[in-house]
Amino acid sequence: MFRDLSRPIETGMPTYPGDPAVSLAPDATYEAHGYATSELRTGTHAGTHVDAPRHTLSEGATVDEVDPGRFAFDARLVDLRPLEPREPITAEALAAALGDEESAVDEASAPGDPGVDLLVLRTGWASYWGADRYRDHPYLTEAAATRCRDLGVGVGVDTFGPDPTPTATATDAATASDEPDGTPAHDALLAADLPIVENLRGLDGLPSRFRLYAFPLRLRDGDGSPVRAVAEWEG
Amino acid sequence: MFRDLSRPIETGMPTYPGDPAVSLAPDATYEAHGYATSELRTGTHAGTHVDAPRHTLSEGATVDEVDPGRFAFDARLVDLRPLEPREPITAEALAAALGDEESAVDEASAPGDPGVDLLVLRTGWASYWGADRYRDHPYLTEAAATRCRDLGVGVGVDTFGPDPTPTATATDAATASDEPDGTPAHDALLAADLPIVENLRGLDGLPSRFRLYAFPLRLRDGDGSPVRAVAEWEG
Repeated sequence: MFRDLSRPIETGMPTYPGDPAVSLAPDATYEAHGYATSELRTGTHAGTHVDAPRHTLSEGATVDEVDPGRFAFDARLVDLRPLEPREPITAEALAAALGDEESAVDEASAPGDPGVDLLVLRTGWASYWGADRYRDHPYLTEAAATRCRDLGVGVGVDTFGPDPTPTATATDAATASDEPDGTPAHDALLAADLPIVENLRGLDGLPSRFRLYAFPLRLRDGDGSPVRAVAEWEG
Repeated sequence: MFRDLSRPIETGMPTYPGDPAVSLAPDATYEAHGYATSELRTGTHAGTHVDAPRHTLSEGATVDEVDPGRFAFDARLVDLRPLEPREPITAEALAAALGDEESAVDEASAPGDPGVDLLVLRTGWASYWGADRYRDHPYLTEAAATRCRDLGVGVGVDTFGPDPTPTATATDAATASDEPDGTPAHDALLAADLPIVENLRGLDGLPSRFRLYAFPLRLRDGDGSPVRAVAEWEG
């Protein structure tokens, strides 16, 4: 079984605040060339995408420097719902959601282990895609991200990312006063070369364990890349 | 084992004649934004990519209309070397290269069959990437493409595509007089909804059978898409 966990990429699609506008426009035509091609203009973090360490760390690895096999994940779905807008997801809440299986997750950090190497965190925010409210997603505390790092697992989210996103009314990157500055959750994961997959969709009815393919384009020195995120499982 | 079969995507990279120039440029910066992002401008057929039926058929399916699981291929490497520049690959030459295993390939057209659903045709032209000579690749005759269609297999190539590419000195799409007009090999495959993967690299030392992931981005109404082509096999 396969499931598409990707957002469509199209002209005018929603983007992270300040990111480049996305456009997909015809180039060659059947009439003039005998075939159709198009030109895509997109930010490297548009739609469903992966972050490379370089995204927040100036010395971090780029998407073309990471073994692409790392992006064929053994993934586990972690349902954190219900959550409030801009609710912090603490290390304790994450541990509770992982429950008795946490020790199994832990094994994934051993080389060659077929265990989990990505936690897909379901916040329920996918349903707000395209609305201002999509910005008001829950976020991972630095401690929660550090716990993932210690488990050796990357993180996939159904939101703009694991750190807070500026509100629709903010004039800059300022967020609520109790929210962290900067990108501490990103930094904790990316400093350990653990991938982050963002803006996932289609999590409804997924099994708790599946394989997730989210191969970044081989962008030279790329800080991230749009991906076709595809889940596969037996069934 | 994983192997990257993709060309790097970078500013000024080689493209099919007439295709849009590719650029990857910084957008957000650590200094101004606290993180780095980039803007990518690319044709939908730049570098290693897949063709959707819409590429040559105005009523054909688009990349976002095809089940993404179709792009997790059970692939077979078919070594056709040595070949001459612009040598036509006939149905007979293809059959000879497939040899005794052709009947096994045939089974791949049965629903649910774990057999081959993509032939990766190695012409040796990958070594000319970036040179004028890369345009002078061998091509599939319409009969050879029709044979693939009848076997129910898509085609991957280490060239610009299964049809001839205009020479470096051509002022338009004109090619040698004994070469076909239009895109008959594309049409034969795409009319049967069989995928084409182009500009593959890194075929040296691949096993004869492997899984190939080449998921297109979910481009709305897209005629094709750059991909990260990744081979996986046991070993």
